[in-house]
Amino acid sequence: MTTPTSHPFYLDCDTGIDDALALAYLLATPQAHVQGIGTVSGNVSAAVGARNTLDLLQLAGHAHIPVAVGAHDPLAGSFGGGAPHVHGSNGIGEVSLEAASVSLASETAAEMLVRLAHEHPGTLRVLAIGPLTNIAEALRLEPDLPRLVEGITIMGGAALAPGNLTPVAEANIANDPEAAALVLSADWNVTLVPLDVTMSNVLEERHRQELLASSGPVPRALGEMLGYYFRFYESQFGRACSAMHDPLAAALAVGGVKAAVAPVVHVDVDTTDGPGCGQTVCDMRGLYMDYPEQPEARCRVVLSLEDDFAPHLVEVLLSFGGAEGTTAGLAGAVSLT
Amino acid sequence: MTTPTSHPFYLDCDTGIDDALALAYLLATPQAHVQGIGTVSGNVSAAVGARNTLDLLQLAGHAHIPVAVGAHDPLAGSFGGGAPHVHGSNGIGEVSLEAASVSLASETAAEMLVRLAHEHPGTLRVLAIGPLTNIAEALRLEPDLPRLVEGITIMGGAALAPGNLTPVAEANIANDPEAAALVLSADWNVTLVPLDVTMSNVLEERHRQELLASSGPVPRALGEMLGYYFRFYESQFGRACSAMHDPLAAALAVGGVKAAVAPVVHVDVDTTDGPGCGQTVCDMRGLYMDYPEQPEARCRVVLSLEDDFAPHLVEVLLSFGGAEGTTAGLAGAVSLT
Repeated sequence: MTTPTSHPFYLDCDTGIDDALALAYLLATPQAHVQGIGTVSGNVSAAVGARNTLDLLQLAGHAHIPVAVGAHDPLAGSFGGGAPHVHGSNGIGEVSLEAASVSLASETAAEMLVRLAHEHPGTLRVLAIGPLTNIAEALRLEPDLPRLVEGITIMGGAALAPGNLTPVAEANIANDPEAAALVLSADWNVTLVPLDVTMSNVLEERHRQELLASSGPVPRALGEMLGYYFRFYESQFGRACSAMHDPLAAALAVGGVKAAVAPVVHVDVDTTDGPGCGQTVCDMRGLYMDYPEQPEARCRVVLSLEDDFAPHLVEVLLSFGGAEGTTAGLAGAVSLT
Repeated sequence: MTTPTSHPFYLDCDTGIDDALALAYLLATPQAHVQGIGTVSGNVSAAVGARNTLDLLQLAGHAHIPVAVGAHDPLAGSFGGGAPHVHGSNGIGEVSLEAASVSLASETAAEMLVRLAHEHPGTLRVLAIGPLTNIAEALRLEPDLPRLVEGITIMGGAALAPGNLTPVAEANIANDPEAAALVLSADWNVTLVPLDVTMSNVLEERHRQELLASSGPVPRALGEMLGYYFRFYESQFGRACSAMHDPLAAALAVGGVKAAVAPVVHVDVDTTDGPGCGQTVCDMRGLYMDYPEQPEARCRVVLSLEDDFAPHLVEVLLSFGGAEGTTAGLAGAVSLT
């Protein structure tokens, strides 16, 4: 594992069980200064995702971080209702958290991102772990955004791995291909964290039990949520376990883990209505020669990690357990309904 | 390696260096009774491919096998000029073969396939190693074709591997996506031999030298052609070697080699004008569970072989060297121009 460096962060999410893991990972990493969080419809609606985010922030003792509701609908079409079979009807695996007492920000997610980019010129890191609607809207609001931020890390797409929403399309991209096409064609440094790496780094039941055994309410809540998530992934892997999409993107954005194979390649997004709709068409033809340089390519596609991610993730998440000061009195706030 | 079983064959090709290898493999396998060969524009035009095929048949002592010229243009659009950078301007790596003295068949390739299917009901095996235009035309001529033939083996597409003509599309499919869509949606047993397996079974320079050292003009001619092919593949693999697209499909069709991983999955062909145009969209989402059965799927997608293919291919091709009877007097027929 590597040592994170200090950076202000804007997180764009659709919370979501693995979004909750990513959020907790960021909050548990002192070098990641989360300045604001926007939500977008994906796993759940933008509104439900925002409530889940606020509740998690309060549980983690970070209720001061502002949360803005973003786009309910993708750039074209309308929100399809999310993925309750994966994340539960409430988005966090039917776990009940104490309702946060703080309010949502009055700005939109896109406005928040643009504001933060101006407040932290050249240093803001964007972590996008839902559909890219808000990021595309921010690019429209502020065409200079790519110059203003340090870079963007995106959980999404599939390079050589199968898709998950369709045979070739991953859900975050497929839920708003037009937005993804705008974001991936903008002139900035993109790190794409596709299914290739998130499906090959798996959290096992023993890791979940470590979270459940924690004295801290945050790891315990995450462990409870993962019970639901594991049941979905049993249909994918044949055993109780899960992929680690969003927390892996968080760890790469923060610098807590290091990519092993991560070529910088051309990436197109399929916005047709054909069988490839929503696919990230990554030019991986350099595969047989260790991916020679592609002139003018900007998108770093992470295919593998130097080390197994699960132990690192669990270690970081368990650090909430020791922080009794931030979680005292919240032990009763988590219950599985 | 497995033992081939006896079958009548129709070969559809765009000869082409690796088509020449596939043809020689079939001719050297006594159980493969090649009843007719149709050509299609792909590596070269259908007309040039037919001349190359006739010349190779004569060199191999099989000038009696009828050759029919098939479609010059794909179902939509027109022939793009082939791949001289891969196969040479004459399609067979600038090797000069003695011009065959026999004529082309008076039927089209599609007509030949339909005729042979009726003459060998239930037993004809179709091996298609070029764009699928002729096969699609045969399906239009005879909608019962899927019931009449035993099965079809197609070299084409890419499942989890990168494409070769575009980031996701393989040349045979991409050169006529409309035809491929028709052929892959017809109700017959299809074995697809995609880049996944053809790019991971490589012929090395030492294998080529074995062919060149043969006393037979056929292996020697193939070894000469491969010199050109190797120079192209050096840009793909970083060393003098080549993929073995077409001969591998021939060996699978004949039963000379056995697939190791070959799930039967749904396959769509992308016929849009988007970045996925020409892609075989294979549903490989079962990857993480050893590919559970997909109801109503018909397409067997070969991902890997039980054994390394190159030694088997060389062994079969070298069997021409011992057949002095068929090649006597032809030693002077091969020259590298």
